[in-house]
Amino acid sequence: MKLKLTLLTLLAFSTGAFAQNADSIMLRKIYDEALVNGQCYQNLHYLCKNIGQRLSGSANAQKAVEWSEKLMKSYGFDKVFLQECMVPHWVRGAKEQGYIIEGSKKTPVAICALGMSVATPTTGLTANVIELHSLDELKTLGEAGIKGKIVFFNRPFDPRFISTGNAYGAAGDQRFAGPAAAAKYGAAGVIVRSLTEALDNYPHTGTTRSAPGEKQIPAAAISTIAANELSAVLKRSPSAKFFFKQSCQLLPDVKSYNVVGEMTGTENPNKFISVGGHLDSWDLAEGAHDDGTGVTGALEAVRILKALGYKPKNSIRAVFFMNEENGDRGGEKYAELAAQNKEEHIAAIETDGGGFTPRGFGFTGLQGGSLKAINQTWKALLSPYDADKLTAGGGGTDIEPLQGNVPGIVLIGFRGDSQRYFDIHHTPNDVFENVNKRELELGAGAMASLIYLIDKYGLKF
Amino acid sequence: MKLKLTLLTLLAFSTGAFAQNADSIMLRKIYDEALVNGQCYQNLHYLCKNIGQRLSGSANAQKAVEWSEKLMKSYGFDKVFLQECMVPHWVRGAKEQGYIIEGSKKTPVAICALGMSVATPTTGLTANVIELHSLDELKTLGEAGIKGKIVFFNRPFDPRFISTGNAYGAAGDQRFAGPAAAAKYGAAGVIVRSLTEALDNYPHTGTTRSAPGEKQIPAAAISTIAANELSAVLKRSPSAKFFFKQSCQLLPDVKSYNVVGEMTGTENPNKFISVGGHLDSWDLAEGAHDDGTGVTGALEAVRILKALGYKPKNSIRAVFFMNEENGDRGGEKYAELAAQNKEEHIAAIETDGGGFTPRGFGFTGLQGGSLKAINQTWKALLSPYDADKLTAGGGGTDIEPLQGNVPGIVLIGFRGDSQRYFDIHHTPNDVFENVNKRELELGAGAMASLIYLIDKYGLKF
Repeated sequence: MKLKLTLLTLLAFSTGAFAQNADSIMLRKIYDEALVNGQCYQNLHYLCKNIGQRLSGSANAQKAVEWSEKLMKSYGFDKVFLQECMVPHWVRGAKEQGYIIEGSKKTPVAICALGMSVATPTTGLTANVIELHSLDELKTLGEAGIKGKIVFFNRPFDPRFISTGNAYGAAGDQRFAGPAAAAKYGAAGVIVRSLTEALDNYPHTGTTRSAPGEKQIPAAAISTIAANELSAVLKRSPSAKFFFKQSCQLLPDVKSYNVVGEMTGTENPNKFISVGGHLDSWDLAEGAHDDGTGVTGALEAVRILKALGYKPKNSIRAVFFMNEENGDRGGEKYAELAAQNKEEHIAAIETDGGGFTPRGFGFTGLQGGSLKAINQTWKALLSPYDADKLTAGGGGTDIEPLQGNVPGIVLIGFRGDSQRYFDIHHTPNDVFENVNKRELELGAGAMASLIYLIDKYGLKF
Repeated sequence: MKLKLTLLTLLAFSTGAFAQNADSIMLRKIYDEALVNGQCYQNLHYLCKNIGQRLSGSANAQKAVEWSEKLMKSYGFDKVFLQECMVPHWVRGAKEQGYIIEGSKKTPVAICALGMSVATPTTGLTANVIELHSLDELKTLGEAGIKGKIVFFNRPFDPRFISTGNAYGAAGDQRFAGPAAAAKYGAAGVIVRSLTEALDNYPHTGTTRSAPGEKQIPAAAISTIAANELSAVLKRSPSAKFFFKQSCQLLPDVKSYNVVGEMTGTENPNKFISVGGHLDSWDLAEGAHDDGTGVTGALEAVRILKALGYKPKNSIRAVFFMNEENGDRGGEKYAELAAQNKEEHIAAIETDGGGFTPRGFGFTGLQGGSLKAINQTWKALLSPYDADKLTAGGGGTDIEPLQGNVPGIVLIGFRGDSQRYFDIHHTPNDVFENVNKRELELGAGAMASLIYLIDKYGLKF
């Protein structure tokens, strides 16, 4: 592209800058603060490079808590406090090994243990492999077809979904519920195709679940390239075997914390609007997009309002939740304390889909024609910032427990562009360098704008 | 982010898949073809890795023409043809050198010649530096303040623009017109701050212009990091000097070509809807986003329609323009031939802002209430694909000459997200690896959808 200086160019800016409506002027100020004086990118840099991975229960997670508290205090919020919660302490152990055994040929492949998985025997696990594409096939094959084998769940992302989050939702049962389901049929272990459409050679980790007391078997993610290779081998050599070795373990729970910073409401101090992400991350990289951008972006939204001298009617909180990835203990604790303290919550915004260019917000819990009313009024205000897709359905793991505990709350999911997220999600590639400064700042601007509008007008129309 | 499988997830997909409206079914088919059977990403890979940079007049540009023609023929279009045009042949020469001289200290900095610039003397150019922030300051200072000096244009991108294209437009006069303007006041040379908001250490090249017969002086881009350094040095040492050496030259014009593939209209073969980007690129990298994604995405849009068995009423063309970066000769030739052949053109779509996630389209030349009507009808069809921002104002360097030559044409700019573009634009970083497969495919889907709607309904409401 070459230079294009048109009248339209200048109009596009000046119409925002000099609009007469008080709300549009306020939104322009919010975005100017985000884009000119933004601090989220440098905060994210610190979190990624000076702390790094911060899996729940780790020493780094504790460092991240301490840094977050100090950072919030430096912003001069009315209150900064910790909420104690006990979190699981799962550790990966030595680097995992995996290979395909076809006759006398051993081909090493990229794998990693799924979070919360158990270890293999110390000498590793070798077994025949059965490739499945759904959990239903376990029932069809029964114990006769499964027992003693390594179940290889290999259903790929469906590329037809426009939002990659939906493709994740549609493939994710394999990782989330597959190992526990396969264990019931006597499987020896489970290998899950990494949850991404990208053909890459990273294993994408993530949690797997089992009910208390349920039998657990070793479960690992395999890169999509290696999954395709394993599938090809099994087609030509059905008796091929797979070997993997992992030494992960679940240690006793550890004390940890949510970190909360608050601007106290001038009219309704016990009514809250919160915005948050999760401070914990997986252990393979820096948790940049998942969810470093979430916590630094949420904090930035509140910092912007404070920097502009805004005096909120209601209390506004930035919440750094602990343990979203493998337990949800922080989210549960936040909801528990909200009920215990008889807090009224107007809305909770969660940002946990990466720090990508904003599209808008999804809403759950709006009554009557409120979504329509919001679209009739706020959409035009957010449109110059391309953050105006205001749709039904939104929330997030950390704020969902509030729904049961706080009547009338509206849950809101920040919606950034989803296309690049699963290229890096839960991989060694989730590093600071893959975050774009402006995209992160624009997200903070969008969240600050929405908080301002909710604080001023509420969510009941 | 952890797994979220909700009913909404599935609904989001099925409402698209099973909608009853014929147009929404067709758009869903278009996107399925783009996302499941897409060929643009592999075509882009070939163009970037097997051909690479393809500056106008170079041997690689000719290779790119030949490859493009062969590729279009392989798709079985009704017509594939070349349009001959003469293009400038500017060559960069040896790698440029630049350093700041502060007393006895020499600090090397990252620079590169601006496209179409002249060389320095073979031993380089050393002079005092005057830092300016606008072309107007030349007039204020006059020859007394400028003569014999190196003018350093250092006005940064204004981060407040939401679209980075607007920031480029507002800063770009420094590169585009600055050298010719400074030459009039006797400047010895010009150094221009790279046109990006990012703080990086790449110089961002790009063309600079002078009128025929005008005095030309050597002009180079300097990285933003080095520009900040130079500015800091000048503040403490106003007598600091700058040295640079470049050996670029403009050789005689070379014969080159636009490449055009056409599906001929079944009802109106002489009425055209074209979609295109430019095949030439700068010489510092692979021209991946600028504009490899444009040509491969435009071609993909037409391929998709053909693959679906669509029989257009009007003729649909994929146009690979030559020489957008430093001459516009291909765009001018296309318009000249359109007039000469008495072609009627309904619309021309240009995609030259990178292969980023689609936002929508900008329109220039719509009559009366047509933009409103389009928003009332097509917006809802494009909304599930997040490509529904249909706004006034759009076009592009390659299609603008059509406006004078073809009465009634509507110029349309494909609008992808702009946030990352100027991180890589005209730098060594514009490589295949920085393109996301799905973003490119979604862009092709959006363009194919718009072409389908224009072909069916026209643009006059």
